[in-house]
Amino acid sequence: MTTTFSSETYTLTVGALTRELPLVRPTPNRKLPLVEFLGDTELSQAAALEVQKLLPDGTDVLFTCETSSIPLVHALAVITGLPYEVARKRRRPYMNDPLIQDVASMTLGVGETLWLDTRHAAQLRGKRVTVVLDVVSSGGTIAALERLIARAGGTAHGRVAAFSQGQPKLEIRVMQQLPIFER
Amino acid sequence: MTTTFSSETYTLTVGALTRELPLVRPTPNRKLPLVEFLGDTELSQAAALEVQKLLPDGTDVLFTCETSSIPLVHALAVITGLPYEVARKRRRPYMNDPLIQDVASMTLGVGETLWLDTRHAAQLRGKRVTVVLDVVSSGGTIAALERLIARAGGTAHGRVAAFSQGQPKLEIRVMQQLPIFER
Repeated sequence: MTTTFSSETYTLTVGALTRELPLVRPTPNRKLPLVEFLGDTELSQAAALEVQKLLPDGTDVLFTCETSSIPLVHALAVITGLPYEVARKRRRPYMNDPLIQDVASMTLGVGETLWLDTRHAAQLRGKRVTVVLDVVSSGGTIAALERLIARAGGTAHGRVAAFSQGQPKLEIRVMQQLPIFER
Repeated sequence: MTTTFSSETYTLTVGALTRELPLVRPTPNRKLPLVEFLGDTELSQAAALEVQKLLPDGTDVLFTCETSSIPLVHALAVITGLPYEVARKRRRPYMNDPLIQDVASMTLGVGETLWLDTRHAAQLRGKRVTVVLDVVSSGGTIAALERLIARAGGTAHGRVAAFSQGQPKLEIRVMQQLPIFER
């Protein structure tokens, strides 16, 4: 996939923070603001404070997947005191009988696979687990994470995201909608 | 690679925190304690406080790669107020003319590739950049990250890791040495 950058930016506001997001072109007729939490502790912490308000009561554990959501979920875990678990996108050599779950992500244009090691799956068992992501588009990743929760013996308790881009097929509590510019 | 778990554990102490780490067997005659920062905010923050003491004076930017080091480096960035950048292990669709750097990691047994998008490489230019990792073994990942720093126009200013396991070939400031049990 070739992405060309526009010189234009999109102004994002989260709490007292603003960021000039670059616009990327995943396809020739479409421009999207690119938001990244990796490397931005201020944005991660500001968004975590807002996302906290969306968390359903009774959440026992936060659940996400690598990589871009990790700073947000880490910051949210620090604020709330809740534990979190991370599904991996590559098998790691030390994994022992992991749960393996396919996800068809519209964003990436290719299928992906999530891996959850036995020791981490055990942390979801019998727990009310809320999925937290940085950006949702089709909702395919959330569906795969909820399948992992069920297979681990937990209960899918809620779906929260900092941003949505497009129209997710699932009901998700979102802090802010990001635009898609068609032209 | 098949990894079998031992029922034994290794007791890790970081500041006031202790963790019972599982022992994994990457090869039949070798057992290693497995330390994971992902999902452990307490350990990430306790280690960041210790790693902070190892940071060389004059560091402008922290630099790491995905995935396991991200919670540690995020916590370290929050404590120090320093910015951080993350080299990716997969090309992302929105990357624009990224720096691409091979790394031969002894730990994984296979070569890996690091990707640093133009916009992030620009953040290293003219800066004193300190590499921070969760665990170092051969030092191959650090060497690749320093190559990226040089190619981005930055200066490799220091090497810091929370843990070492084995004998890195490079001089690295390490918070704690983890054992390798041969038998």
